[in-house]
Amino acid sequence: MSLEWLQQPTRSPDAAARDAALARQAILTKPPGALGELESLAVTLAALQATPCPAVQHVQISVFAADHGIASAGVSAFPQAVTGEMVRNFANGGAAISVLARELGATLEVVHLGTVNDPGVLPGVRRDWIAAASTNFLHAPALDDEQLRRSLQSGRDSVTTAACAGMQLFVGGEMGIANTTAATALACALIDASPLELTGAGTGLDAAGIRHKADIVTQAVAYHRAFAIDPLESLRRLGGFEIAALAGAYIAAAQHGVAVLVDGFIASVAALAAVRINPSCRDWLLFSHRSAEAGHARVLDALDARPLLNLGLRLGEGSGAAVAVPLLRMACALHAGMATFAEAQVSGKS
Amino acid sequence: MSLEWLQQPTRSPDAAARDAALARQAILTKPPGALGELESLAVTLAALQATPCPAVQHVQISVFAADHGIASAGVSAFPQAVTGEMVRNFANGGAAISVLARELGATLEVVHLGTVNDPGVLPGVRRDWIAAASTNFLHAPALDDEQLRRSLQSGRDSVTTAACAGMQLFVGGEMGIANTTAATALACALIDASPLELTGAGTGLDAAGIRHKADIVTQAVAYHRAFAIDPLESLRRLGGFEIAALAGAYIAAAQHGVAVLVDGFIASVAALAAVRINPSCRDWLLFSHRSAEAGHARVLDALDARPLLNLGLRLGEGSGAAVAVPLLRMACALHAGMATFAEAQVSGKS
Repeated sequence: MSLEWLQQPTRSPDAAARDAALARQAILTKPPGALGELESLAVTLAALQATPCPAVQHVQISVFAADHGIASAGVSAFPQAVTGEMVRNFANGGAAISVLARELGATLEVVHLGTVNDPGVLPGVRRDWIAAASTNFLHAPALDDEQLRRSLQSGRDSVTTAACAGMQLFVGGEMGIANTTAATALACALIDASPLELTGAGTGLDAAGIRHKADIVTQAVAYHRAFAIDPLESLRRLGGFEIAALAGAYIAAAQHGVAVLVDGFIASVAALAAVRINPSCRDWLLFSHRSAEAGHARVLDALDARPLLNLGLRLGEGSGAAVAVPLLRMACALHAGMATFAEAQVSGKS
Repeated sequence: MSLEWLQQPTRSPDAAARDAALARQAILTKPPGALGELESLAVTLAALQATPCPAVQHVQISVFAADHGIASAGVSAFPQAVTGEMVRNFANGGAAISVLARELGATLEVVHLGTVNDPGVLPGVRRDWIAAASTNFLHAPALDDEQLRRSLQSGRDSVTTAACAGMQLFVGGEMGIANTTAATALACALIDASPLELTGAGTGLDAAGIRHKADIVTQAVAYHRAFAIDPLESLRRLGGFEIAALAGAYIAAAQHGVAVLVDGFIASVAALAAVRINPSCRDWLLFSHRSAEAGHARVLDALDARPLLNLGLRLGEGSGAAVAVPLLRMACALHAGMATFAEAQVSGKS
């Protein structure tokens, strides 16, 4: 199987459904525009779901976990064993995203792409083993061609399953010690930004730790600079299994016509890679929150994205996107459930 | 019945419960602080509910509706008949807050304090009639002493009922054509701000309409200036039945020990009046969103409030607070439901 699918056309949002939703918003019993972004959310979801009355009851959350060779450069506040330990925590229902998925009644899929500390086969975890970790990208590509292909396909597989199951929204999450380092390096390659500007604290580095991490990112970006013009090659050289899986998932979601709610920094970098690889997938991406991670603002700018929330979140796992799901649901409920001026016999503007 | 109850002491947040919640946040399986404001929300709610594991399942939403004499000055984009028509829309379940209350499983109470267009007795509406409208405050106080007393008491009654029913969160909403004009004038008196700076579009005035409204506010604030030093007297002179009811509800909630989630501009001005009347009620106020209404930012600053959401909402009815309720619920669910590092056998920081 090749990577040609990445370039296959995405679905187009439905202009007629958008217009019908806009027309409905104009006659609901409220001053025009008074529900702010909840109005535009309902209209956007109408276009993406090709119906004048969208809904977000069926939500798929897929969390991709993988380890990173760059962790050996000492760029994380937590030991690498945590990635595998958290896979078990996801499976056991104790992680933040486990709690949020239950709270939302969402379907949670955990995809284990490879960890140095292998928790083994676990109930509720899709094991799609690629390798124990990506390669340290300081002096080599993080992924080989086959690893890239399989990672992208793993994300695509999650979305295909979700689409067939009638999911109305796809949320992708990630877990992988050192993956803010990979995401930062990839973002620098994709938007030609300075590692000093984009490097942040990740899971909680102090100032010295951030300086060291920025130095590592600087070296890596310089080493791979000649290939930065090609987003897919940048993803291979500087990404990770779970970052590539998210990029594949986002492109596949756009091809299947499933709306996506993007999580924080790492997910947004994956989204940026996806958009650079297949620009038409951008229409299908909604952005949930502005993370506390330093580089997120620049990545959001590059995506022309205005997220819904700004709560200082920086956990990953898809947690920020999960937290924003009720906003989408309420936007849909208001759109479908409010009375019109005529129905309620309420007077219009003077 | 006098107004002495306004000065009765409020409950104190529970320091031991706050400390216990803080300690729990530190051992949950996430980097410390990674859940941002959701962590501080859980800790604050723990202190307010005096339990290390707070919950926001039982939510009371009380919407107070009343008309305003100042409407005759031509300060609203909608005719005055809309207030009474919306009371019926609330009762029939067609308004935004009706939809949101259903979505949240919240208890919705509609309190009808008086409208020029009287929809009569309606099922599901608490009729606490004060007058058809407040007095035009351009050349007289908006409320007389008895109207002020009864309005404050009406809000207090809603909270007392909610507290007895075991409600864990109180949301106050309002409906009243021209009530952004009253709220703006009251805010100018309370924080000595310029009407030109604080006056906004309300339900949708154009630039000329906003200039006219600012001129009306300027005249009213000048007329009542000598009394601006007394917040209760400012509330009487420049407020409205529903604004006073909200202020009374907020003070009563703090006295009953019920956490409050404050809605947008008008609710925040009522909250500011409440805090100026009885400063210790401030501890019990959480702020839901930053409204698109021009004066809200200054009012929030005066309250030292950082709201959770910024979605361009400007509807009132308590709708913005309702939209934020799931954030509180998820903060509580994460706090209660996540595994600790020890429980999940996940390694801590390196």
